[in-house]
Amino acid sequence: MRVRIHVTPKSGVLDPQGKAIGNALTRLGFQGIGDVRAGKIIEVQLEAPDADAAKNQAKVMCERLLANKVIENYVIEVLNE
Amino acid sequence: MRVRIHVTPKSGVLDPQGKAIGNALTRLGFQGIGDVRAGKIIEVQLEAPDADAAKNQAKVMCERLLANKVIENYVIEVLNE
Repeated sequence: MRVRIHVTPKSGVLDPQGKAIGNALTRLGFQGIGDVRAGKIIEVQLEAPDADAAKNQAKVMCERLLANKVIENYVIEVLNE
Repeated sequence: MRVRIHVTPKSGVLDPQGKAIGNALTRLGFQGIGDVRAGKIIEVQLEAPDADAAKNQAKVMCERLLANKVIENYVIEVLNE
């Protein structure tokens, strides 16, 4: 099973990487750039009997390692077998 | 308009960040971890008259700044107005 995990900063949390990207885009001449947020995608190949089990396993991975729940949200998507 | 851009390493390109995450998951006791790939999500608020224009603008941003086309793929998703 392959799962894709999206980790994004919670709204209201300062996102310096997103801010830097927004400034760089404006400097490059793009106009009307508003809020920019930067996050991570992590795709993991794991062994699980079904999609639910894969999702649960990915959830534990997020809680323990992949996301900082204080400042980040995560969304788990099971891709296929 | 808000667009979400997914930037991921091309398959075959070495992905040290993904590798490090995979090793860390294995060390934490997760079993059967296979290939892990790490990428970026960038959400940009921009001014565009319609979804097509927003997508085109995001494409130019990817080509010029957000993605390194030699080693990365990108996918653009227009979220809503």
